[in-house]
This record gives sequence, C-alpha cells and structure tokens, in this order.
Amino acid sequence: MNTPSPLPDNAQTLVKAYLLNLQHQLCEQFEALDGTGRFIHDEWTRPLGGGGITRVLTLGSVFAKVGVNFSHVFGEQLPATASTLRPELQGYRFDALGVSVVSHPDNPYVPTSHANVRFFMAHKDGAPSVWWFGGGFDLTPYYGFEEDCKHWHQTALLACQPFGSDVYPRFKAWCDRYFYLKHREEARGIGGLFFDDYYEHGFQHAFELMQSIGDHFIKGYAPIVQRRKAMPYGPQQQAFQHYRRGRYVEFNLIYDRGTLFGLQSGGRTESILMSLPPEVSWHYNYQPEAHTEEAKLYSDYLPIRDWIT
Amino acid sequence: MNTPSPLPDNAQTLVKAYLLNLQHQLCEQFEALDGTGRFIHDEWTRPLGGGGITRVLTLGSVFAKVGVNFSHVFGEQLPATASTLRPELQGYRFDALGVSVVSHPDNPYVPTSHANVRFFMAHKDGAPSVWWFGGGFDLTPYYGFEEDCKHWHQTALLACQPFGSDVYPRFKAWCDRYFYLKHREEARGIGGLFFDDYYEHGFQHAFELMQSIGDHFIKGYAPIVQRRKAMPYGPQQQAFQHYRRGRYVEFNLIYDRGTLFGLQSGGRTESILMSLPPEVSWHYNYQPEAHTEEAKLYSDYLPIRDWIT
Repeated sequence: MNTPSPLPDNAQTLVKAYLLNLQHQLCEQFEALDGTGRFIHDEWTRPLGGGGITRVLTLGSVFAKVGVNFSHVFGEQLPATASTLRPELQGYRFDALGVSVVSHPDNPYVPTSHANVRFFMAHKDGAPSVWWFGGGFDLTPYYGFEEDCKHWHQTALLACQPFGSDVYPRFKAWCDRYFYLKHREEARGIGGLFFDDYYEHGFQHAFELMQSIGDHFIKGYAPIVQRRKAMPYGPQQQAFQHYRRGRYVEFNLIYDRGTLFGLQSGGRTESILMSLPPEVSWHYNYQPEAHTEEAKLYSDYLPIRDWIT
Repeated sequence: MNTPSPLPDNAQTLVKAYLLNLQHQLCEQFEALDGTGRFIHDEWTRPLGGGGITRVLTLGSVFAKVGVNFSHVFGEQLPATASTLRPELQGYRFDALGVSVVSHPDNPYVPTSHANVRFFMAHKDGAPSVWWFGGGFDLTPYYGFEEDCKHWHQTALLACQPFGSDVYPRFKAWCDRYFYLKHREEARGIGGLFFDDYYEHGFQHAFELMQSIGDHFIKGYAPIVQRRKAMPYGPQQQAFQHYRRGRYVEFNLIYDRGTLFGLQSGGRTESILMSLPPEVSWHYNYQPEAHTEEAKLYSDYLPIRDWIT
C-alpha cells in the first residue's frame, strides 16, 4: 500500500468541525422539507472509546423516519471489516469519524436517500499514520422518474467536477458495484457516488472532495422531495414501497460495510440500525405484473445506466 | 479433525427419503393446524448442482406464512460458510441435504417456530469421505407463557433422551449460544435444540438422532398453537409482534449460518429468504414500558433459563 502524505496537526479537529456542522445543517434542512417533524437528539458514548450524536425525526408530515448520525469512535484495534482489505493495518489504533444520513419518506413516490462521509486514521508507534476519506450518496426510488434520476446524477457530477473529470465516472461506477445485492442480482437503487480509501493529492484536496460530496447531497435530494411529496398514492403503491424496503434491509444487514463495521466495533446498535425502514414486508416470490409502474422500476431504473448523457 | 466412520452405500438415499417424507408430513400437519391455508409447491434447480422443493402457505387462518423447504444441493467446492470451521475441507466436493421450517403466525400470542435437519457429505479423491448431521428447533414467542416454554423444552428432552442423558443439555446450551444476537445482547427466543458437525457413534446412531429431532418438532409446536391461536389481541400486541419480528430478520441476515450458506452457495434466494416474516417494523430506541407483558418477555423469557427443572 502507498502511504498517504502526512496529516496536518489539526486534521481531526477540522474534519470533526465540518462533520458536526454538516449534521446540524442537514437536520435543519430535513425539518424544513418535512414541515412539522422535529429531530430528537441522543448523545451516546462507546465503552471502548468515543461516541456519537444520533438525531432522528419520526412520524413527520413527509418522512416516516430520517436519521442523521454523527460518530467519532476510536480504539486500540481496527475491527475486522476495516482490516480485511488492509491486513497490514492489523494492530493499529484507529479513529473513525463520520456522518451518515438515511431518509425514509411516507409517500412511495419520494425516494429513500442515503449519504455518508467519513474519515479514518490508523496509528502505530514507529510507523507513519495512515488515513483516508470515504463516503458518497445514493438514491433508492420505489417509482422511477427520469428527471429525478438525471437531477440526482447531475448533482453528483457537480460535486465531483472541481476535482477532475475522472472522479464522477469512477465514483459512480464504484457506487453501482457497491450497492448491489448479489443474491438478487439487483441494484439497490439508481446509485450516485461511492468512494473509500481516498487520500489522493494529500489531505487538503481529499478533505475538500469529501466536503463537496457532503454538501451536494441535499441539493440533489431536496428538489426531488419537493416535486413528489404531494403526489396522491394508494394502498398498492404503499404495499410496493414496503416490499421494496425489504431490499434495503437485506442490503444493510448482509453487505453494508458501515453497518457491519459499527456492529463489530461495539457501536451503538440503535444508532447503526436507525437506517432500517419503519414498516417493511416480505412476500414469497413476488413479481410485479408486466407493463406496470412497478415493473418499470426493475426494467428501466434498477439496471445500471448512464444518467448524465 | 476425527474422521467419521464410513457411510453405508445407501446413506444419501435413506436420508433423502426421510427428509422428503418429513416435508410432506409437516405440510399436512401445518394445514391441519391452520384449517384453511394450503401450501403451494415450487420445484427449483440450482444451476451449479442440485435443487429443491419449496412449499409455502400464506394468508392462512392461523399462519401469515409457513415455509417448509427441502433442498439437496451439491457442488465442486464447499462454500466459505461451511469451510471456515473446517479449513481442511477446502477443495472437497459436497452434498448438502436438508429440510427447514419457519412459521409466522398471525396471532401475537402464538410463537414463531423454526426447525431444521440437515446432512452434509464432503468427498475428495483419495481421502475418506467426511459427513455430519446438524439441525434442531427453537421457539420465538412474542408473549411468554411458562407452560408453553416448559412443554417445548420437555419435548426437546424427549427427542434427545434415547441418545444419552448428556444430549439435551448439550444441544440446549448450543442452541442458546447459536440463536443469540450479539449486537442486542439478547437471545432470539427461548431456544430449544441446536447441533452441528454430529457424527458420533456412526451413521445409524446419528441419523436416528436427527430423525428424532425432526419428528419431535411438531409435537412441541402444535399444542402451543392450539392453546393460543384463538386468544383475543389488539393493535398493541400486533405492533409489538411486528417490532419483535425485526429481531428475527436481524438474526437471519447477520448471523444465520444456513441463510448465509444458502446465499453464498448460489441457492434459490426466494426459498432461503422465505424465513423472513411478512410484516416487520423497526422503531428507533423502542423500550417496553416497565411491568407490562411486553417487558416480561425481556425480563423473564429471553434471558437464558433452565426450562425443565
């Protein structure tokens, strides 16, 4: 592995300040989007080191549940999910800071959204510190709208553009690979951005990239919520939304690195699993009827596509 | 690892005949318990070798969903979940045969039940064949009743007694360890029996033990269903049932060896995930009110107990 360039002394302070502010801003923006729902505020400490602030809005006018988590956990041993890809870091102390957001709207025409930005540092006496950024955002519609998907990916492109023209295509493809349910041979949604182990061009560049992605998430999501939140729907659309939310649960519990890292590293279970949807259903061997809006999700939206050109 | 004693030539035929008959019997018994629901019958083949018969009853009078799966899968390479505990079997061909049952009742006073019996064979040219049995049954109540739990464990004891007085305590303790959600520090239910890698005293003995456990499952479950299925309940009990079903999903997707084996070995996803409950909910940081029936589940039933004496 290449060793990233040295960190400035105040790196952790800078990242933490950004993340706490991002959490605050996102809560304000989600409250404004919702209209009536308000976030509760739960602080927690992790017995093995660190803690976090969990903010959850439930039973709002637009959102059934939104969670915006900040956490900073540290410890003497990197958990297995973080060190399988980097066996050379076994035995390193670590600091992991991040904000993650998941929104589960009531209206099935409003997509579920997820964003995450994170910073890792690993230290060992006598060895150079290792650090990297990761994160991204992705969208999970229940019913597809071309203009929403294009706007979402256009915003993703804008977030990446200042950092080089290769960044969006790289992170978009990474997102498509990451949010994929192998056992269903199906994408979780229409993707967006995903990156990890990022330390290119030094701390300042990498930190700015993470901030740009963190800041663009709500710019991608808010206009879609505004457009769809008042669309009339009935029990059929709601049943399909509950069924599709099952895929979200399957992904998060079987594959998601952040969820497994959190559970393995002794994180706070209720904060980690706040990403799970409020009401979910599984139906044996359900298939949408041909030529319906539900079938179009599978045929036109979930297959990996280029949404920009 | 000790090598188990040699298999009779017709071992696989004998086990398969037992399992197919068990599946048939269980479907008849569940239909009788339900009254109106009928099982559908889906045969499937696994592209990499083998296949199965999935039987599912949905929207019955008593059961929201019951799945009774038979499968016989084989292949050139043991999947990772089966070989992590037995690294010496990497590169072995394998045969895996089993029946698994999960019932999700409508009435929250009727517990969810699960049973599984399975037979593994691993072969390599020039090496002796390796084989073992595994399985068990466990109960997941939403509301606790002492007499139900005692009857369940008494039936488990009866299943094991002919095979030695150490068998029930061993398999009971193994079940308590296995069906445990580490991230919740909570048992999935009140346990029962669990065993794996079992080849003691040769094929005949081990096969009879597996059959006894397979046959006793419904004797443990049916009287409990009869006693509870007509108990009146309201939205509060149903909401608690849906919430608790979330734990079932968490266990099966994060920990269950059978689920992960099935998904990793290219099994049929809909058959594997038929174990998931039909309607489920997650609520951030839910805690039952003190001194309620819901609180008693946590205080009196989920902590590991001796149910026999």
